[in-house]
Amino acid sequence: MLYFFNNEFTNSAYLPLEERSVNFGDGVYEVIITYNFKPFKLDEHIDRLFYSANEIFLRVPYNKDEIKEIVNEGIKKIEKPNLKIYIQLSRGSYERIHEFPPSYIKPNFFIIFREFKRIEDDLRFKGVKLFTYPDIRWERCDIKSLNLLPNVLAKQFSKSKGGFEALFIKNGKITECASSSFFAFIEDKLITHPLTNEILAGITRGEIIKIAKSLGFEVIERPIYINEIEKIQECFITSTTAEVLPINSIDNYHFAIGERTIKIYNEFIKRAL
Amino acid sequence: MLYFFNNEFTNSAYLPLEERSVNFGDGVYEVIITYNFKPFKLDEHIDRLFYSANEIFLRVPYNKDEIKEIVNEGIKKIEKPNLKIYIQLSRGSYERIHEFPPSYIKPNFFIIFREFKRIEDDLRFKGVKLFTYPDIRWERCDIKSLNLLPNVLAKQFSKSKGGFEALFIKNGKITECASSSFFAFIEDKLITHPLTNEILAGITRGEIIKIAKSLGFEVIERPIYINEIEKIQECFITSTTAEVLPINSIDNYHFAIGERTIKIYNEFIKRAL
Repeated sequence: MLYFFNNEFTNSAYLPLEERSVNFGDGVYEVIITYNFKPFKLDEHIDRLFYSANEIFLRVPYNKDEIKEIVNEGIKKIEKPNLKIYIQLSRGSYERIHEFPPSYIKPNFFIIFREFKRIEDDLRFKGVKLFTYPDIRWERCDIKSLNLLPNVLAKQFSKSKGGFEALFIKNGKITECASSSFFAFIEDKLITHPLTNEILAGITRGEIIKIAKSLGFEVIERPIYINEIEKIQECFITSTTAEVLPINSIDNYHFAIGERTIKIYNEFIKRAL
Repeated sequence: MLYFFNNEFTNSAYLPLEERSVNFGDGVYEVIITYNFKPFKLDEHIDRLFYSANEIFLRVPYNKDEIKEIVNEGIKKIEKPNLKIYIQLSRGSYERIHEFPPSYIKPNFFIIFREFKRIEDDLRFKGVKLFTYPDIRWERCDIKSLNLLPNVLAKQFSKSKGGFEALFIKNGKITECASSSFFAFIEDKLITHPLTNEILAGITRGEIIKIAKSLGFEVIERPIYINEIEKIQECFITSTTAEVLPINSIDNYHFAIGERTIKIYNEFIKRAL
């Protein structure tokens, strides 16, 4: 493991007790993985980091090229082909007050580089279980913020029942999962929630839409309601770390692992590797 | 300033970068003040800490008496009559995963003892400005969690306009403020939002309801809608640090500082001091 913290690479890094992420979750983050030493969709992740930061009026203390350089330097230093790279930016260290600290307070920017083991191939063909959970999150899920307690509770709920992910339901509508996006084939069309304030603009989600179209599938961005579950032909989740992962059940409802999902997964991996 | 951290009093304390409050806001907190060396409503604050922790399945690593003892020991050590005591409890330090860490991971419990200067008396008679802000928070505002980004954004919005607090509006309804409760006299009755998942059960809020009743006011717990603003005779906020603070304006709508608010404030202070 390796940290980038306080503008340098280090193996030891700590935050004070009065820090904006610690007390308020007042910050944003990104998770990037590498395939064979290469960060996947690095530009897109950095763009989204800037988007999230901007939406909460948080200054990123580096420009995009500088962050790319730091990420690539870390990858070289740690010398492992497959990494999970966690970037966190918060509004800095300051006596706990709700309003922003004075402008001379520097944001805290750090990166954690850690070896990453991709999900085993057999899970890819067996699929994973999802359990539904009420979408009790705030109204700005388009911001990749550190306020993740509802996601934590949802994920834990699912894991405690033997699930892999939680599927958020808001007024009967499927929004997304605790840490991934949701896709389903219905009437031979690939459906996923549109980009609104209710979901995160997943980087893998965007890539999968492109890939599905390139494979000749019709893609429709519209909400899926949980009462449409019987119409689902096959479904899967996507995220940076899960890539494309077929779903074999949602609560007590079971699905076969579909050929179209596998086809999309194979094309994704072909492009990623 | 003084910390209680890792089961001891210290002047120096830090958290690792992979810690549940840092990465997820996965924790709860309390703020207590002392009047002349005495913590105000300590039992109630500790009860609420346990309530919040329990709602997110988080174990408090001390019993209630032990926490009281620690708080009182800190007050003795720091030797200042007026303190702000911040208690934070998180799900511990562990490699970042959404689900709960293994059960052998200990929660992180810390307290910050810091000198506190009460709000000046003239503000008490001049009143403060509030600005409305959409209540975009999650659906469990009864939990005093560390997921406070919407509160931070709301408070900053108000401060940037010269306000003291932000007033959350949810579908036209006043819920509460970014870090305080809201009360208004309408038709000579004292009105405040009922205890639901949409607001925090403010300790001072509870005390004010008791005091108002003891002073002969009729208290009604029901939501106030922002379109009732013209019917408001006088209004104020309450919180541990603000105590009772009259409001002189909400957005462009102005209020006189009312006698009933001052009467309630005076009774509150008489009981607190």
